[in-house]
Amino acid sequence: MTTRTETDSIGPVDVPADAYWGAQTQRSIANFPFPATERMPIAIVHALALVKQAAARVNRAHGLAAEKADAIEAAAAEVAAGRFDDQFPLVIWQTGSGTQTNMNVNEVIAGRANEVLTGTRGGKMPIHPNDDVNMSQSSNDSFPTALHVSTALAVRERLQPALIELAGSIDEKAEQWAQIVKIGRTHLQDATPLTLGQEFSAYAMQLAKASVRISGGTTDVYALAQGGTAVGTGLNAPAGFGDAFAREISALTHVEFRSADNKFEALASNDALVELSGALNTLAVALTKIANDIRLLGSGPRSGIGELVLPANEPGSSIMPGKVNPTQCEMLTMVAAQVIGNHTAITVGGLQGHLELNVFKPMIGAAVLRSIDLLSVGMASFAERCIEGLEADERRIGELVDRSLMLVTALAPEIGYDNAAKIAKHAHEHGQTLKEAGLALGLVDAATFDRLVRPADMV
Amino acid sequence: MTTRTETDSIGPVDVPADAYWGAQTQRSIANFPFPATERMPIAIVHALALVKQAAARVNRAHGLAAEKADAIEAAAAEVAAGRFDDQFPLVIWQTGSGTQTNMNVNEVIAGRANEVLTGTRGGKMPIHPNDDVNMSQSSNDSFPTALHVSTALAVRERLQPALIELAGSIDEKAEQWAQIVKIGRTHLQDATPLTLGQEFSAYAMQLAKASVRISGGTTDVYALAQGGTAVGTGLNAPAGFGDAFAREISALTHVEFRSADNKFEALASNDALVELSGALNTLAVALTKIANDIRLLGSGPRSGIGELVLPANEPGSSIMPGKVNPTQCEMLTMVAAQVIGNHTAITVGGLQGHLELNVFKPMIGAAVLRSIDLLSVGMASFAERCIEGLEADERRIGELVDRSLMLVTALAPEIGYDNAAKIAKHAHEHGQTLKEAGLALGLVDAATFDRLVRPADMV
Amino acid sequence: MTTRTETDSIGPVDVPADAYWGAQTQRSIANFPFPATERMPIAIVHALALVKQAAARVNRAHGLAAEKADAIEAAAAEVAAGRFDDQFPLVIWQTGSGTQTNMNVNEVIAGRANEVLTGTRGGKMPIHPNDDVNMSQSSNDSFPTALHVSTALAVRERLQPALIELAGSIDEKAEQWAQIVKIGRTHLQDATPLTLGQEFSAYAMQLAKASVRISGGTTDVYALAQGGTAVGTGLNAPAGFGDAFAREISALTHVEFRSADNKFEALASNDALVELSGALNTLAVALTKIANDIRLLGSGPRSGIGELVLPANEPGSSIMPGKVNPTQCEMLTMVAAQVIGNHTAITVGGLQGHLELNVFKPMIGAAVLRSIDLLSVGMASFAERCIEGLEADERRIGELVDRSLMLVTALAPEIGYDNAAKIAKHAHEHGQTLKEAGLALGLVDAATFDRLVRPADMV
Amino acid sequence: MTTRTETDSIGPVDVPADAYWGAQTQRSIANFPFPATERMPIAIVHALALVKQAAARVNRAHGLAAEKADAIEAAAAEVAAGRFDDQFPLVIWQTGSGTQTNMNVNEVIAGRANEVLTGTRGGKMPIHPNDDVNMSQSSNDSFPTALHVSTALAVRERLQPALIELAGSIDEKAEQWAQIVKIGRTHLQDATPLTLGQEFSAYAMQLAKASVRISGGTTDVYALAQGGTAVGTGLNAPAGFGDAFAREISALTHVEFRSADNKFEALASNDALVELSGALNTLAVALTKIANDIRLLGSGPRSGIGELVLPANEPGSSIMPGKVNPTQCEMLTMVAAQVIGNHTAITVGGLQGHLELNVFKPMIGAAVLRSIDLLSVGMASFAERCIEGLEADERRIGELVDRSLMLVTALAPEIGYDNAAKIAKHAHEHGQTLKEAGLALGLVDAATFDRLVRPADMV
Repeated sequence: MTTRTETDSIGPVDVPADAYWGAQTQRSIANFPFPATERMPIAIVHALALVKQAAARVNRAHGLAAEKADAIEAAAAEVAAGRFDDQFPLVIWQTGSGTQTNMNVNEVIAGRANEVLTGTRGGKMPIHPNDDVNMSQSSNDSFPTALHVSTALAVRERLQPALIELAGSIDEKAEQWAQIVKIGRTHLQDATPLTLGQEFSAYAMQLAKASVRISGGTTDVYALAQGGTAVGTGLNAPAGFGDAFAREISALTHVEFRSADNKFEALASNDALVELSGALNTLAVALTKIANDIRLLGSGPRSGIGELVLPANEPGSSIMPGKVNPTQCEMLTMVAAQVIGNHTAITVGGLQGHLELNVFKPMIGAAVLRSIDLLSVGMASFAERCIEGLEADERRIGELVDRSLMLVTALAPEIGYDNAAKIAKHAHEHGQTLKEAGLALGLVDAATFDRLVRPADMV
Repeated sequence: MTTRTETDSIGPVDVPADAYWGAQTQRSIANFPFPATERMPIAIVHALALVKQAAARVNRAHGLAAEKADAIEAAAAEVAAGRFDDQFPLVIWQTGSGTQTNMNVNEVIAGRANEVLTGTRGGKMPIHPNDDVNMSQSSNDSFPTALHVSTALAVRERLQPALIELAGSIDEKAEQWAQIVKIGRTHLQDATPLTLGQEFSAYAMQLAKASVRISGGTTDVYALAQGGTAVGTGLNAPAGFGDAFAREISALTHVEFRSADNKFEALASNDALVELSGALNTLAVALTKIANDIRLLGSGPRSGIGELVLPANEPGSSIMPGKVNPTQCEMLTMVAAQVIGNHTAITVGGLQGHLELNVFKPMIGAAVLRSIDLLSVGMASFAERCIEGLEADERRIGELVDRSLMLVTALAPEIGYDNAAKIAKHAHEHGQTLKEAGLALGLVDAATFDRLVRPADMV
Repeated sequence: MTTRTETDSIGPVDVPADAYWGAQTQRSIANFPFPATERMPIAIVHALALVKQAAARVNRAHGLAAEKADAIEAAAAEVAAGRFDDQFPLVIWQTGSGTQTNMNVNEVIAGRANEVLTGTRGGKMPIHPNDDVNMSQSSNDSFPTALHVSTALAVRERLQPALIELAGSIDEKAEQWAQIVKIGRTHLQDATPLTLGQEFSAYAMQLAKASVRISGGTTDVYALAQGGTAVGTGLNAPAGFGDAFAREISALTHVEFRSADNKFEALASNDALVELSGALNTLAVALTKIANDIRLLGSGPRSGIGELVLPANEPGSSIMPGKVNPTQCEMLTMVAAQVIGNHTAITVGGLQGHLELNVFKPMIGAAVLRSIDLLSVGMASFAERCIEGLEADERRIGELVDRSLMLVTALAPEIGYDNAAKIAKHAHEHGQTLKEAGLALGLVDAATFDRLVRPADMV
Repeated sequence: MTTRTETDSIGPVDVPADAYWGAQTQRSIANFPFPATERMPIAIVHALALVKQAAARVNRAHGLAAEKADAIEAAAAEVAAGRFDDQFPLVIWQTGSGTQTNMNVNEVIAGRANEVLTGTRGGKMPIHPNDDVNMSQSSNDSFPTALHVSTALAVRERLQPALIELAGSIDEKAEQWAQIVKIGRTHLQDATPLTLGQEFSAYAMQLAKASVRISGGTTDVYALAQGGTAVGTGLNAPAGFGDAFAREISALTHVEFRSADNKFEALASNDALVELSGALNTLAVALTKIANDIRLLGSGPRSGIGELVLPANEPGSSIMPGKVNPTQCEMLTMVAAQVIGNHTAITVGGLQGHLELNVFKPMIGAAVLRSIDLLSVGMASFAERCIEGLEADERRIGELVDRSLMLVTALAPEIGYDNAAKIAKHAHEHGQTLKEAGLALGLVDAATFDRLVRPADMV
């Protein structure tokens, strides 16, 4: 491998000749030898590039030469667009401020800008990674800003659409099945009836509320640390930098970011991401309930509940027709379990940190983003490959309603509680339907029974 | 022990003669032999009594005789006021719908009303625990309603006041210390300065945001399941019961409750409490950070940071003066750890349950209430016994600022970066102050140094 | 309230005249105003009393006058036996070393010994709480020692017996049902058959392994911190104190405790309790699986799986016979969820602490003990009130086996895979049994079918 | 893209012409559209290949033609060696039994064997993915077997060596620093002295115990599900398959695997992995404590504790010498937080599942392996880049000991407790050393002081 030499305050380092990055990136590669599967999420890198682009726009008014600002903006835009994704080899498990990834971005943008300006890749001339690309910034404010930007974008562009898609597909089923009367179950025991549509309306409501919770839980994510620099005082950033930056990054992303009211809090805590993770946790709880119910209602084909027929996406058994494994439910509940676990990780990271800086930022950011992405893909897939293909087995549903004993409550007002109970008991002991038992005991006639026992009136 | 006989649908049961409760309570005592330390939180019992009182007010218009309604209301009010707290021996660990505690409340209210009306304690005449006290209700809607009512009251009456008290006491310190310049620390390493007031302003902001989060996280707690009865359809409750009930319970509690839009969701999930627990989790994270910082800043008396002096609430050492253990910090971080653990428990309970009913309600309710109460007492105590008595050791703070090397950055613009770095290096190697090193190296004179190196200008 | 005056190094304090405790206990009551429901578990107090008793036995050989040692031993034995349980008003949420509860025990033992020796309750003469009762000890070694002693006793006396009882009751069912062939279910979908006994043997194995795991997870709990005094060096304790103490406490408890090899680790970490909590967490996971399966298999009475009949411990429905709520399953899974939550709390407490002392000890100890006690009572109750009363509904089980399509695999070797699949498909589409379909298609005759399709041969 | 057609029981599917996989893999790609960062850990794929190789060795004696067995073994060995890692595009988030990854491995081995035997890649002739490669197996036993095999190898080959390396490096420091007397700290407050070696010995002991815990926690991981086939009965596998398989896989891996005693438990639960995760959780707790202590002791350079000097792996500040960020501590504590989070995820997955199969296997397996790998790399890096380069700042340590007030306890036996306390109080109030205060008060002479106050005698 041919190399070139880059330097930082410790000294010179050999860097691959074709790399855009510099000395600090190279040191981090050596110091944190985790495999490529542990790389910093590229969404954070892209967001950092947007941060650099927005910062260059502000710095232009504060002493950054126009040609430098132009060059930085152009290179940053390329990075943000994903053109140099292979230039970000650093992993999540590095310094807890994300400094090394911030420097990786600074170095690659400088290295690319220098290439454009001079024909020579890398280096610090004319564009310096610290003095120019990182101007008015510190890792301590840029990195948490990038976490907020990438997270807000992920929520807006991926999570909420998937959640709305899933809620919509469930809602559609709830409407479609509004008239299908089925047996209710509480304590997993037969209870009074409801409609299948009502049952699904609970799921739709859980998701509608989850969407509101996630919106609420993202509020503080729109507040950005940028402008606080190293400890929150804004030392080395011009006055008003935070506000101006917020305007520029909002313009770049079409999201309404704002400058955090208190920069000390914005650096020292990651409460906003802990809060958002709590909202994701609640969503994961809801998804587990929903997917578990659906696989239970779809259990069978012969020895389960069998009220729903699941779409057959893949062979469930090579020989047994009707055996359709609820694989989308399994995927979604596994995703939910990991999201719940990530929430614990984020909580443990969030409660630590000392004084002016929480140093669990890369872990927290990576975990929140992974949770969002898993939920996004998982929910969309679940909507498209499970909910949309669900069918109600109305014959089976009717059969279970008909033989339910719980409907006996409808007889009580007319034949008395005691007689109703006798009918139920007789039916239970002899394996009869209520009607059979009522007629056998002579406690009710067929016409009365049919008039009174109308499950559809009980929902 | 003298006993009397009470009965339920299974048969007769001996009950202590002086107990107000009936057969179902007695069975539950036998079936769930946990010790008294595991009793259902009394706040849930009181809330259930309020539910019965409000329900009686509504039922009055739907066939409940006025004298019955009066008697139920009166007895329920007594229970809600805590007059019969010894009549609720059941534990958290019972049926997951809370049916047995609901019946305990029904039986005691009936038993007390019957005592008032007939002179004989207990029984079902003239007031029947099910037909009259539980009229238009099911455990499946009454119990989650009581969880929401007790939780909302606990948040409003205990948690938010304590949180506001603590935030206020911290804010006061932040203002009081607004001019005390101190060394900042990032990565636990010396960094550029800030004021002690700025440092504390971060804590105040964390708590202010936590308060908003908890308000947001309580929104859905104000939505009540009542009116859904057994499976959410409202079978056996008159039309409009949920809305009328919400009005009555709001009048009784002076809290704006509302009837849940979707009763199926309100029975089948406990997402609202999972959400609230997530907000409590975020608060616990913030409190841990704050209390950890304060004990670190108060570490010493000789071999720690020593910037803060903690109030001496109890002997820290019988012989060593100045050894003040940060016991309030220890209490608060232990509370936070338990709240974080309860959040996991609540999450695990919330994700289970099947179909029309989540059956982890008593555990979830008890855990949320315990978290709220621990946080409430803990924060108020921390405010009163730690924050209010905190003192800044200005001499120590000044000493640390004076000998900091980080201030060298202030020299760079005038004597150049390289010379500034030389001074810092010399000071580091010889254990000198920057000023001593600068003068020794002849790179700066005293007047220039004093003019440039002004920590107060860096905050 | 009449009071007397007690003093500590801070000064005088008024104490209720009839209390045995002294100044430090009284201060802690005022400083940590949590309700009585948050009291330090009495098992920890009892264990601390055993610690004092054992320490007095050792101190006798190191300068503690025999009459003092006698008096301390006698009073400590009374406390350990539970005679003064009302004298320990302190709560879990105090100093993180448990110093205040250690002093509460020291004061009550001294106060009681002084009462016996002089007729006057309380005080420090002739028995001094620190100099005599706490001789050769520090809270920093006594309190973690008490946590280990109380935990080890709870595991031995309560948890393992309950676990063995439950495993035994399940094992008995597994043997009793060894010949009942039933349909298997994977992915909640019908699968090849097994016996009900085999199914239950999995549960018994989970519990047998859990018992071994808990034994393994208790190994380090038998290692005691005592002898390390304040920071682990053993300053102020005579040489060999730890070993001698371990012998005495072993004699008192009939448990083989040992002195920890490294006292620094024994004070600074609570890893042994984190490990034990991990074993409890695994048990909670197993119990959740088992209880969930049992309520699923017992679902019905008409619209569920219905292979098991649950014991009717309380009314499930006042009108519907056969509706038996799985209340013991609900209790047990709620217990499990809390244990899992406590494990998170214990983990969060265990990972914190600084340098020579972890200061989350009361929370960790209380949470581990609560988990143990909940599991103990819960498992014994579940064994006695659920497992022992379980019945197999052999008619229902047989019916489900008979109509299963999965048995078609047994035909393949003789009539070929393709023909077997045709039969299954025909049965599925026409709602027939395999036999009906096979005969209808003419692909197999009745005798061949009966010879080949023998579920009992497939298990 | 050129394609070829492969088929499964649902029908034909287009597969990339150069892919080795078949129809079921292709369907899974379409059904679970997660990004490549979510791929099933390759260690699981390699272990599955070993499973196939071992199974072929056993099947040879049970009807698998020798040339087929040879071809399968050869192809499986290639896959296990990593030669076809790009042929496993499936993600973690698929069916919860891991069936699709099992089929991916079956298809690639068949496709490769067919290529070797016929020159044509892919297909089912002569080697059939199900009939030949998967012979005597089901996904339900092969996949959990592969989880156990990959996990056991990861523990043995990566985790334990890294843990031993780290414990060793800490132990070396403990020995090297055995004579350096330093101030102890409890409650983060100054306490009696100990040696730096003793302090580090606690860390070494925590890790030594963690290693034993992980060994214990891996015991059941050596028990393999293989031989249970679909539901645990072993249907379609020859008698003795499990034992023979265990011998073959042990031979291939040089690890002593055994056949699980109860195959029902081995399929229906993942308790063995939950247990192991609990041991990893305890290790993560220990690592957090250790890394937190080290960064605290290394805080500074001027305004912290400063007893340790951290190795300067990267620039901490471009201008301030001595500012060395504890980046390895930050990495390790972030790793620990994720491991703790994964433990929650694994717990949540482990407690679910229904009846004969737990369907959270891919999530559980991937999370356990990620935890192991993060810990392995993290600990080795921490040993090499932090512990080994740590230096004790003996001057600073001595200075803190000299000015400590806690040493006054050494004077008490000779000059009396009261006089000793007076000296300490005077020193505290006047900012003096104890010696200065003692001489000033005339309560002790210099010779006596020097004779009595010898920190080295107190450790």
